[in-house]
Amino acid sequence: MSAGSNKFGSLFQWSTFGESHGPAMGVVIDGCPAGVEFDEALLVDRLAKRRPGGPGTTARVESDQPEILSGVFQGKTLGTPIAVMVRNQNAQSTDYDEIKAQPRIGHADDLWTKKFGEWDHRGGGRASARETVNWVIAGAVAEMFCLAAQANVRVQAVLTTVGGEPVKGTSDPQLLERLQKAKLEGESFGAVIEVRVKNPPPLIGEPVFLKAKSEFTKAFMMINACSGVELGGGFHLANQKGTEVHKSHESADYGGVRGGMTTGETLHFRLAFKPTSSILDVAKKGRHDPCVAVRAVPVAEAMAWAVLADLILVRRLNQL
Amino acid sequence: MSAGSNKFGSLFQWSTFGESHGPAMGVVIDGCPAGVEFDEALLVDRLAKRRPGGPGTTARVESDQPEILSGVFQGKTLGTPIAVMVRNQNAQSTDYDEIKAQPRIGHADDLWTKKFGEWDHRGGGRASARETVNWVIAGAVAEMFCLAAQANVRVQAVLTTVGGEPVKGTSDPQLLERLQKAKLEGESFGAVIEVRVKNPPPLIGEPVFLKAKSEFTKAFMMINACSGVELGGGFHLANQKGTEVHKSHESADYGGVRGGMTTGETLHFRLAFKPTSSILDVAKKGRHDPCVAVRAVPVAEAMAWAVLADLILVRRLNQL
Amino acid sequence: MSAGSNKFGSLFQWSTFGESHGPAMGVVIDGCPAGVEFDEALLVDRLAKRRPGGPGTTARVESDQPEILSGVFQGKTLGTPIAVMVRNQNAQSTDYDEIKAQPRIGHADDLWTKKFGEWDHRGGGRASARETVNWVIAGAVAEMFCLAAQANVRVQAVLTTVGGEPVKGTSDPQLLERLQKAKLEGESFGAVIEVRVKNPPPLIGEPVFLKAKSEFTKAFMMINACSGVELGGGFHLANQKGTEVHKSHESADYGGVRGGMTTGETLHFRLAFKPTSSILDVAKKGRHDPCVAVRAVPVAEAMAWAVLADLILVRRLNQL
Amino acid sequence: MSAGSNKFGSLFQWSTFGESHGPAMGVVIDGCPAGVEFDEALLVDRLAKRRPGGPGTTARVESDQPEILSGVFQGKTLGTPIAVMVRNQNAQSTDYDEIKAQPRIGHADDLWTKKFGEWDHRGGGRASARETVNWVIAGAVAEMFCLAAQANVRVQAVLTTVGGEPVKGTSDPQLLERLQKAKLEGESFGAVIEVRVKNPPPLIGEPVFLKAKSEFTKAFMMINACSGVELGGGFHLANQKGTEVHKSHESADYGGVRGGMTTGETLHFRLAFKPTSSILDVAKKGRHDPCVAVRAVPVAEAMAWAVLADLILVRRLNQL
Repeated sequence: MSAGSNKFGSLFQWSTFGESHGPAMGVVIDGCPAGVEFDEALLVDRLAKRRPGGPGTTARVESDQPEILSGVFQGKTLGTPIAVMVRNQNAQSTDYDEIKAQPRIGHADDLWTKKFGEWDHRGGGRASARETVNWVIAGAVAEMFCLAAQANVRVQAVLTTVGGEPVKGTSDPQLLERLQKAKLEGESFGAVIEVRVKNPPPLIGEPVFLKAKSEFTKAFMMINACSGVELGGGFHLANQKGTEVHKSHESADYGGVRGGMTTGETLHFRLAFKPTSSILDVAKKGRHDPCVAVRAVPVAEAMAWAVLADLILVRRLNQL
Repeated sequence: MSAGSNKFGSLFQWSTFGESHGPAMGVVIDGCPAGVEFDEALLVDRLAKRRPGGPGTTARVESDQPEILSGVFQGKTLGTPIAVMVRNQNAQSTDYDEIKAQPRIGHADDLWTKKFGEWDHRGGGRASARETVNWVIAGAVAEMFCLAAQANVRVQAVLTTVGGEPVKGTSDPQLLERLQKAKLEGESFGAVIEVRVKNPPPLIGEPVFLKAKSEFTKAFMMINACSGVELGGGFHLANQKGTEVHKSHESADYGGVRGGMTTGETLHFRLAFKPTSSILDVAKKGRHDPCVAVRAVPVAEAMAWAVLADLILVRRLNQL
Repeated sequence: MSAGSNKFGSLFQWSTFGESHGPAMGVVIDGCPAGVEFDEALLVDRLAKRRPGGPGTTARVESDQPEILSGVFQGKTLGTPIAVMVRNQNAQSTDYDEIKAQPRIGHADDLWTKKFGEWDHRGGGRASARETVNWVIAGAVAEMFCLAAQANVRVQAVLTTVGGEPVKGTSDPQLLERLQKAKLEGESFGAVIEVRVKNPPPLIGEPVFLKAKSEFTKAFMMINACSGVELGGGFHLANQKGTEVHKSHESADYGGVRGGMTTGETLHFRLAFKPTSSILDVAKKGRHDPCVAVRAVPVAEAMAWAVLADLILVRRLNQL
Repeated sequence: MSAGSNKFGSLFQWSTFGESHGPAMGVVIDGCPAGVEFDEALLVDRLAKRRPGGPGTTARVESDQPEILSGVFQGKTLGTPIAVMVRNQNAQSTDYDEIKAQPRIGHADDLWTKKFGEWDHRGGGRASARETVNWVIAGAVAEMFCLAAQANVRVQAVLTTVGGEPVKGTSDPQLLERLQKAKLEGESFGAVIEVRVKNPPPLIGEPVFLKAKSEFTKAFMMINACSGVELGGGFHLANQKGTEVHKSHESADYGGVRGGMTTGETLHFRLAFKPTSSILDVAKKGRHDPCVAVRAVPVAEAMAWAVLADLILVRRLNQL
């Protein structure tokens, strides 16, 4: 991997490390200004939301206790790099020995080995969804910064369909049942997540290569199994006429972005997730999620916070 | 705008400059290795494909004569920055005087002014689609490099639907008629473009934040009016089950990417474009495209080449 | 050359292009905020100070007329990239044909050719001191920004010794005579330049890898023929005891930096230049400077401005 | 601190974290290719050389046991980020309570607090020389990579004068005596370190802003208390004539660099260190080094390896 490929953000910049079955995962946030109140309870809560172990998720259990190694002193950020580490406790790498011999369909273990010559094949190594524990940590710190910059900003991601069927609310009992059944059967589902940012700071996002729309889209598309992203009306708009869509600034489903910038209106994205490729026999031994999108919900929120934090800082440099 | 917001790419890096109605547009490519044959005819051809003036496009006519200022000597790249400039000839800024007073619906002139305090309001300034002349130049040089690295790689973007109706081939007479009519009426259409990369170099794209899928998606989403991007089966996959999709590596519509990497199979993306917001009276005076996606076709190709070139260089650093 | 090797600065970032005997030199400044008054007279003045043609310098004459291609509108910066180009007019590349066959001692034409495979051998190509025209342009824009940020900051570079002999004031007649004689004889001299920054903004420079002292030093050391840089007491301090040096904050010759930061006191650096390597027969045909440090004076000033501008912007991100 | 200010290198890139009296120090190396043999004994040895506790150094004792958190598997680098952490064990922060009230002369605790609003005042926080434990770790990994790329390259830093008096060999008994005495008396000394790189890979370093000479100089100048850097003949050359210096490529003391590049000859730098500013009463309570340059020797070596590794990787991108 080359320089920068484990780094996210221009100014609110963070880099991550850790293999799924190595000693630890970690993130170093370099770019958070000094003086942000460090809300450790928020961090713990965000990690809890991501943690596997729920009925519809992988059997792997990790306590995900974050250890803050630097950058925070007496409850505030120092303006220095904030390093946070989480130990990998439940690394059953023997499960994966047979994977080495027989690559999992839809996974990329075989490709990584070709690419790097060396590869930690256990559980996907660096490419595992385990990595998103780092993203959630970075997102939590980004959230603290964003709230300090604009108190009423909120990010909300919601699972709206699973396998084509709509999800009812945040704890749909029928959904849980379907997922549990799928897990036993080695089945998996595609899904759609909607992400909304309410009260985003206006005028963030730059005109050319740092547009708000491309920054958010990129961040969501980095999530494993995400296979499409729409802003506002998205693909639906592609089938329409301008006179229908652009009746006024208000009516059009721009998704909260004009030019490359936020207008201050709610940002709205839809994310498509393909069905988990860990199916059938091999997958059942390696611990697997019948619908990765379930656990991608807090990850999508984290990435939205990370993009917001970054664009807020970039905005500081616009004017004299 | 802050550092980096006018820069594209990690290693095959290029930065652009120029306001729509300023003296010139230009791009500086810093990162193209020495020894690439510089195919000036290819560059001219790619610019011609993007150039406005066709029946379904804006009335603005620019000759777009590229001037190579540096980095090429005796027909080959020197390994030094390649600077290419195009003069803005047809800058009718008086057309835009009334825009200053009355911002165009769907455009962002009002927002840019708030954001920067200062803004060149003429024709969108830096945020204009005029900027894509730079992207096409960079894409052409990226193409030269990619072909030198892997001779059989090809990028092809095709307009597949306009306003929800399928396009027949590359010069559909009915389409031209519809667009001409729309132009007269101040109407505009959404559209879908499909981009395919045939024979992509395998194993390009990195596991975490430089995934092939997020790099291409980001690049396409930077195009003005692009409001959604899908990889392979995209949103369709979101409605499916794993056992349907993942029967084998071959059957699944992965879009040519596994993990974050190219497999060597054809890459396949779909891009949604919303209807141009330049409609009605104001728009007709400022020169306008009834379907921006028509001109986005060569731009999408250019961005695909740019991403390929970048990921090919990053790949060089994977192993000892 | 790889990405970034033609780029200077973290946030007040600029990149340069142009071969000594190619069509043009140019710089693109990406990171100057909007709203800075663009003082074109200042730019012209700074270029005039650098321009060759004086009695002690190379015979190459260039008018160095800067053409502003973007980023400035109605006398102010737009916050978009500021591109400035200067044509190469007096490119007598035939002078250099024999250089191709017989590399100049002390020059690196032979090495560049090995390194890149391809090289524009004419006059040093990209490695020529001609490149500093770009640095002076970037420095002039940086100066405009710095003055807007802190009105009383001043940068002054002075040639203090040439060939070991002290220089008397800014237009020492004996010096001119020595240089003219040296030029005829194909002789060259080493020299020392002192750079002072008066009223620097305090608290700029970061604690670890972006220290004020290392940023200035790096920038000066980039100048061709610069072979050493000292901060304040420099090598003299290396021979002393702490009880002699650190009597108080005032007495010690810290050079205006503590920790990695400016204190607000005058910054003080000394730069060593080795004698020009263009001596003897070959050199006389290629146009040559008997003392490159003479022309390095405005270049050192430009680089000091560039570092100041960059660190001022970085400072903006320190606190919430 | 803003993004990037805790990051070193373009391609062999590493970022560091940790406050002197916080829980841990650490470094994340992002850019080391896969397949490098990870020589843990070398790492331990390099840390041992830097560790305080010797007769002429601070009383602070740290075991500096490196913990490898990621990026290494079965004795080889994976091509993924290599994270290494060292716990801070001997953090006697009560020593520093009175420092908070009475800032140490020559230190910058007061300035950091102004700069960031918040600051971990204990022992210099992020600006402490404790940070160099990270640099030594990064340097050790860089060394492993460099040796894999070119087996016979060697870096050697030597303390040549202390307080103006020459040092005899690597364990001069008179020097130890002087330092021990100085420690008791609260005295400190300036010093000179010479760094040589033998058998450097030729043709590394780029022509404009990534010259070998400016990259090494910058890296050395980042070391606390370093107040000057010379390449080869340095300031001595400034007093000479070209005809004396440039008799041939061999005779001139270029320091192994021509253009911006290594020639393959031994690289030679001299580094000036000012006397430690921790003197007198306050300093004696905070643990102090009578001559920081003693411990800067392995740090200078580490930084030289880091620069070499980076430029070797950049060189890979020069040609097609």
